[in-house]
Amino acid sequence: MITSTQNPKIKWVRLIQSQSRARREEQSFAVEGVRLVEEAAASGWPARLVLHTEDLSLRGRQAVERLAAAGAEVEMVSENVLRSASDTQNPQDILAVLEMQTLPLPPRPDFLFIPDQVRDPGNLGTMLRTAAAVGAHGVLLTPGSVDPYSPKVLRSAMGAHFRLPIHALSWEEIRSLVQAAGLQVYLAAAGEGQSCYASDFRAPLALIVGGEAYGASEQARLLTTTPVHIPMPGGMESLNAAIAAAILLFEVVRQRQETPS
Amino acid sequence: MITSTQNPKIKWVRLIQSQSRARREEQSFAVEGVRLVEEAAASGWPARLVLHTEDLSLRGRQAVERLAAAGAEVEMVSENVLRSASDTQNPQDILAVLEMQTLPLPPRPDFLFIPDQVRDPGNLGTMLRTAAAVGAHGVLLTPGSVDPYSPKVLRSAMGAHFRLPIHALSWEEIRSLVQAAGLQVYLAAAGEGQSCYASDFRAPLALIVGGEAYGASEQARLLTTTPVHIPMPGGMESLNAAIAAAILLFEVVRQRQETPS
Repeated sequence: MITSTQNPKIKWVRLIQSQSRARREEQSFAVEGVRLVEEAAASGWPARLVLHTEDLSLRGRQAVERLAAAGAEVEMVSENVLRSASDTQNPQDILAVLEMQTLPLPPRPDFLFIPDQVRDPGNLGTMLRTAAAVGAHGVLLTPGSVDPYSPKVLRSAMGAHFRLPIHALSWEEIRSLVQAAGLQVYLAAAGEGQSCYASDFRAPLALIVGGEAYGASEQARLLTTTPVHIPMPGGMESLNAAIAAAILLFEVVRQRQETPS
Repeated sequence: MITSTQNPKIKWVRLIQSQSRARREEQSFAVEGVRLVEEAAASGWPARLVLHTEDLSLRGRQAVERLAAAGAEVEMVSENVLRSASDTQNPQDILAVLEMQTLPLPPRPDFLFIPDQVRDPGNLGTMLRTAAAVGAHGVLLTPGSVDPYSPKVLRSAMGAHFRLPIHALSWEEIRSLVQAAGLQVYLAAAGEGQSCYASDFRAPLALIVGGEAYGASEQARLLTTTPVHIPMPGGMESLNAAIAAAILLFEVVRQRQETPS
């Protein structure tokens, strides 16, 4: 059992939790709590190190066994040590350091989501969770986005990382990908273009939604085929960015499920 | 100019910012930043006290003049004093203490939103912002909800408080109100009931959405006419509560605007 917060493994975990650069260099990120560790194990995600306390639940132990069988190192730690390695105030009994992997995009994606320069980790995490729920084929992050492997993004995304290809790309890469796939590009733009309810979202598409404070970038506008807005009969100026993304992503679901296949 | 953080007025503001009970007893709440203070002024909301720094922008000064003309006391304060009265790390140059008022519900509401026991302030604030955007006739808060006048709720709601009747009620009061208005009651329930896209949201309705960690309460179920779910082709277990609320609230907008009036 590790009881010292100065143990080198624990220091390594803290580095990965706190620094985007360390995550990149180590090609690793950390998730906390039984639910997320369970999802990682269920998806066969490779883990490097699992820390857990003595109090870990049966469900948690089963997830640990699965990760250990796939080669992860497992360490029992004191509560104090887990707290020092955790990003939260009230850590749960388990934390896993996972290998950074990027799931591949399908060869012909017809539903991509492009959050543009979203800097708020909670907002990006919620967007990823929603994108996974609608079954988007992939998420393309633009330059200037928050690190999708930061602890807060991982918490709000609730396991979306294990299902969804998430690719941080340059605008040139995004442009060639979108053109190769022959996608219509819709941009969420308050008060501009046509209503999302009057738009046809059944053809292959990419949807761009800007981060709250900044809106969409010039690069996003250059890529856009069609700006769309969400009608707001109550007359507020704008919606939260994650809410706007969700309305549009689910409008795609609604329109596509109405189409007989 | 107030330069002491121990000034009684500043202590009073801190109390209102930090304690739900103090807000209730003083029948007051505080908003920060030019945008929110401007919205309060534009809606004719009564203000008690406005604190601002010397650096306040022209737009901010215009809002202050408007509130002062309507009877608010105005104090210039040092940056340090404003910081001590603020709920945020990086306060803007203005803060207003407003009178607590509850906007009246219309006599025959046909679109009510009932967040059930939402305890996360950011989630409730986002829900209020969305409810204001769709033009809901009112929001009914159930017992166990977070205080809608807490600083975080006010920040995420982005001025919804000045447009939307927000009533914290007992379940008996909610029941009689819903029955008197003859509303269908829909409850967001993952994997239960009919799809929201197959539901008819054109008739007068109330929509209940539970808080994330707790789901809907027994009382909510007793009031429910029809459980509905949001189809999630990507197979995630659930959505963020504010996202689920937004999908359903905007589905009401979509269906109602398609109806010729």
